[in-house]
Amino acid sequence: MPFPTPLTGVVPPVCTPLTPEREVDVPSLLRLVDHLVDGGVHGLFLLGSTSEAAFLTDRQRGQVVEAVVAHVGGQLPVLAGAIDMTTPRVLDHVRAVTAAGAEAVVVTAPFYARTHRSEIVHHYRRIAAASPVPVIAYDIPVAVHTKLPADVVLGLAADEVLAGIKDSSGDLAAFREIVTGARAHPGFSVLTGSELIVDSALALGADGAVPGLANVDPHGYVRLYRMCRAGDWEGARVEQERLCALFGMVTVGDPARMGGSSSALGAFKAALHLRGVIECGVTAEPQVPLSGEEVERVGKVLAAAGLL
Amino acid sequence: MPFPTPLTGVVPPVCTPLTPEREVDVPSLLRLVDHLVDGGVHGLFLLGSTSEAAFLTDRQRGQVVEAVVAHVGGQLPVLAGAIDMTTPRVLDHVRAVTAAGAEAVVVTAPFYARTHRSEIVHHYRRIAAASPVPVIAYDIPVAVHTKLPADVVLGLAADEVLAGIKDSSGDLAAFREIVTGARAHPGFSVLTGSELIVDSALALGADGAVPGLANVDPHGYVRLYRMCRAGDWEGARVEQERLCALFGMVTVGDPARMGGSSSALGAFKAALHLRGVIECGVTAEPQVPLSGEEVERVGKVLAAAGLL
Amino acid sequence: MPFPTPLTGVVPPVCTPLTPEREVDVPSLLRLVDHLVDGGVHGLFLLGSTSEAAFLTDRQRGQVVEAVVAHVGGQLPVLAGAIDMTTPRVLDHVRAVTAAGAEAVVVTAPFYARTHRSEIVHHYRRIAAASPVPVIAYDIPVAVHTKLPADVVLGLAADEVLAGIKDSSGDLAAFREIVTGARAHPGFSVLTGSELIVDSALALGADGAVPGLANVDPHGYVRLYRMCRAGDWEGARVEQERLCALFGMVTVGDPARMGGSSSALGAFKAALHLRGVIECGVTAEPQVPLSGEEVERVGKVLAAAGLL
Amino acid sequence: MPFPTPLTGVVPPVCTPLTPEREVDVPSLLRLVDHLVDGGVHGLFLLGSTSEAAFLTDRQRGQVVEAVVAHVGGQLPVLAGAIDMTTPRVLDHVRAVTAAGAEAVVVTAPFYARTHRSEIVHHYRRIAAASPVPVIAYDIPVAVHTKLPADVVLGLAADEVLAGIKDSSGDLAAFREIVTGARAHPGFSVLTGSELIVDSALALGADGAVPGLANVDPHGYVRLYRMCRAGDWEGARVEQERLCALFGMVTVGDPARMGGSSSALGAFKAALHLRGVIECGVTAEPQVPLSGEEVERVGKVLAAAGLL
Repeated sequence: MPFPTPLTGVVPPVCTPLTPEREVDVPSLLRLVDHLVDGGVHGLFLLGSTSEAAFLTDRQRGQVVEAVVAHVGGQLPVLAGAIDMTTPRVLDHVRAVTAAGAEAVVVTAPFYARTHRSEIVHHYRRIAAASPVPVIAYDIPVAVHTKLPADVVLGLAADEVLAGIKDSSGDLAAFREIVTGARAHPGFSVLTGSELIVDSALALGADGAVPGLANVDPHGYVRLYRMCRAGDWEGARVEQERLCALFGMVTVGDPARMGGSSSALGAFKAALHLRGVIECGVTAEPQVPLSGEEVERVGKVLAAAGLL
Repeated sequence: MPFPTPLTGVVPPVCTPLTPEREVDVPSLLRLVDHLVDGGVHGLFLLGSTSEAAFLTDRQRGQVVEAVVAHVGGQLPVLAGAIDMTTPRVLDHVRAVTAAGAEAVVVTAPFYARTHRSEIVHHYRRIAAASPVPVIAYDIPVAVHTKLPADVVLGLAADEVLAGIKDSSGDLAAFREIVTGARAHPGFSVLTGSELIVDSALALGADGAVPGLANVDPHGYVRLYRMCRAGDWEGARVEQERLCALFGMVTVGDPARMGGSSSALGAFKAALHLRGVIECGVTAEPQVPLSGEEVERVGKVLAAAGLL
Repeated sequence: MPFPTPLTGVVPPVCTPLTPEREVDVPSLLRLVDHLVDGGVHGLFLLGSTSEAAFLTDRQRGQVVEAVVAHVGGQLPVLAGAIDMTTPRVLDHVRAVTAAGAEAVVVTAPFYARTHRSEIVHHYRRIAAASPVPVIAYDIPVAVHTKLPADVVLGLAADEVLAGIKDSSGDLAAFREIVTGARAHPGFSVLTGSELIVDSALALGADGAVPGLANVDPHGYVRLYRMCRAGDWEGARVEQERLCALFGMVTVGDPARMGGSSSALGAFKAALHLRGVIECGVTAEPQVPLSGEEVERVGKVLAAAGLL
Repeated sequence: MPFPTPLTGVVPPVCTPLTPEREVDVPSLLRLVDHLVDGGVHGLFLLGSTSEAAFLTDRQRGQVVEAVVAHVGGQLPVLAGAIDMTTPRVLDHVRAVTAAGAEAVVVTAPFYARTHRSEIVHHYRRIAAASPVPVIAYDIPVAVHTKLPADVVLGLAADEVLAGIKDSSGDLAAFREIVTGARAHPGFSVLTGSELIVDSALALGADGAVPGLANVDPHGYVRLYRMCRAGDWEGARVEQERLCALFGMVTVGDPARMGGSSSALGAFKAALHLRGVIECGVTAEPQVPLSGEEVERVGKVLAAAGLL
């Protein structure tokens, strides 16, 4: 099955369940994949930020892609992040994840080293030239501290360097510029990474969404997607607002004791554990675990959303 | 030879010369090491930011440490960066660089993922527990977008988790808080990473300096260090100002065409090439090369400093 | 006429035309107001960022409010910014603009001095206690470098301290949290300040919009508002995209020669001059004027949008 | 007495004592001035950030300058901040403070509105052209969110637009570039605003210091200045470290309850009250007052420094 041009629908960034020893819990990962596929999702994005890619060793990253690719057997597209600081290191990850079966790679702007518009362009050109599969840009300023400029993305789309973008910038106005500009490049995939405004993004023309919260409630996001596609904007708004309330779980962790990543990823995993999908809610180090009471509050949010 | 407690003197972050194909140029690297040792430096810091660690693949990182450790044969301490996003990935690098012979590891706060004070503490504790060699904190907010709080550093010094700090924050007041606080922890190494205020840092009590520009002029920094240690503050100021003028080379690259890293590291490598130390001035991708005219201007700066 | 609860519709932040000597050009200002009223707008916001409030002296601020209030004679609500650094200075402006006839005041978080969540709350409470008219929060992080947290805004809405919010943060997900939360507080006005996603904001439940670009094309924004209210989302999208293209004028200024404010406000005023609404396109100091060629490009953008 | 070229020595940014009703407490202000003059300071800087200029109304700003100028009667230079967002508003303050007798004005880069290098240059040129007294640039990125580039400052020094700079950026390397560059412009005053590294700044050639903490301990800063001028760097270091410990009072306020400004300015004023200099420690709104227990801790810091 060729990679969809464009990729549409709900493509969750798949959480990476861990054992208490913080090894990849493959059986839980495959149960999670089944849970997502059963929910009707249209693709899987492995090794993204929600997948804790930044915390997984190279060995663990390989395990994740191999296990999932073997499990889904071509039923739906599998994308994988190639998250690292600069071009040569990203190229190593591109080789590894495509050898393991990923059908597209998702790549951020350079980080750690100071970067520049021209260097970002060169970065994507070099990676696309070397990659055996389509390259999707990952715009995530909160992580890499650079915003991909819309005109850079559209220029690389025009040159067929980039096959799409996953926008986690939260800046819907800039996203719109890409959506409208990309109409000149059919096949280019424009995906939002914002859980809370999927209806807005689809209304202005996005192809799909990559919502971390879809790990917890894939059915909800698939319903939302279908209502948007059917033009039922009022139904979509109501479903989106239900999901926004569910998303409230990400603030469950005490900010005096942990950062936003510990809280949000801890909540997603706690929810997956409470819903019986994964064995253990542990997150990778140095993230701080949720307390028992915080996990209970995740349970209450789930219950309020009718998911428990 | 046990690792010095504290580590003192001039400890350059060693540039990583590359071939035109962007492989590690080991003969040039060893010539550069000889140039530094001849200059009188007191230690070598491999795989730091100036070494383009963010751009080197794991294989190349290993090559660098192995080659240099074998070459210097214990003459002077060799530190290596273990630069990666989070604890599990850093631990892999710690294993690799210590297996290759590094005598201390230099580790930043987590990056890419959002972090938190408590997570930074846990990060260093986990790494120190697993590391066979001393762990030195690397405070480089421009890269990791977090400033290590002085009280966190001093707490980890008190607990003997950290053996020292390399401060590249540019914030001398915060650095001073560490320097004075660390007097309670003899053996803890306080090193500045700021090329331009080494005299100031030593005057307030720093143990040493890790100046990128010492690649180009190790003799200058060693002279500066000795004058400071001898209490010749006026001589030190004059030498430091000469080195500040030399540092002007880092702005040689056209900001419309490249970022600060391309310009600064390009200038250091161009200078090393012009001085006959390394074979080729190329920097790693996606950095943009200096133009011929920009390289000429590096030459003029060198000449003005009496180094050509 | 009592102040609307909530305030709905299109409420342009009115540009402040200046003479070549940089005095308020009152006749041009009143022509601009007529142009907006003829366009069907639902209220006027004076002394906002688009009005160059930051650049107007106290005397000029007074002139603007007095002239406009006298001119519109209660036909439609007139809001005025009370833009200054801290509570005591804002209170002086509240007194001045309400004495001049403003029917609501628009107030940012404190700036220049470092601030804090609790100080922001106290700031608004003190201002509301002293203000004879409703207080609307102005969330503009690009100017004040603080984002108003949604729960702070909603808490102040519940306590009837704030009568509404103008959100210029560009963060639609956070805006949505306020929109949905404010349903518990009927009468609270939720207004977006983003020119480019008015349709999205209205779709998720905003009461209205405060688009700077509505100075140039009030008819377009009023059409857009009406289509949204009528549930014609497809028509709204097309109209919004036309306005997005028109908004392209804000990048007309050469970034090597001027900042974003000079370029955007210069373009709005050039457009108003080219459309025959105001006498002179000059902006306040220290903003840099557009070149003749840049003004020509504004003309081309207007022509492409059918406005010339 | 002509304004010194350069201005040298210790020039405290004078706190503005307030009554419980938050009016300027003129008798306390004049006692504070006497306390500073008795301490041997070399000038007074009114209406700076430490003076809560951002919180004072125009009327109060005028009161402060008039009262102090009348009181000191030309004994020592009196500078005044003209702190506002943009050129026209700053010009109004320049007129007001010079009419009230200020002998130099201190002016930041534009803030609130987005700015640009060329606009900063134009801002200072316009202000200098209109000011009857010397203009000193105030580099305070924490407040205005722009760093004054060293080459811009030196260019304006060369053109005699600027008469000096007060650097509160905390970036000693950039400060050094101005200090060394300014040697070509005798008469240009280079002053550090960093309380904690006055010895370092003077060692590399600064003319003087503007330390907020000198309100609390003017004698200490004057001793420090004299030791530096006498080349007693070891004595200076010890004195500076004593002052650094004293500066610890700025963190006395609970960060869960207040911002950094409330804590630091609250501590300075509490210390002045405890030392019997001012009547009341209240700070301007919306700052949060220190608790009784926090004030007690200020007292302990004072006692430890031998000041109580």
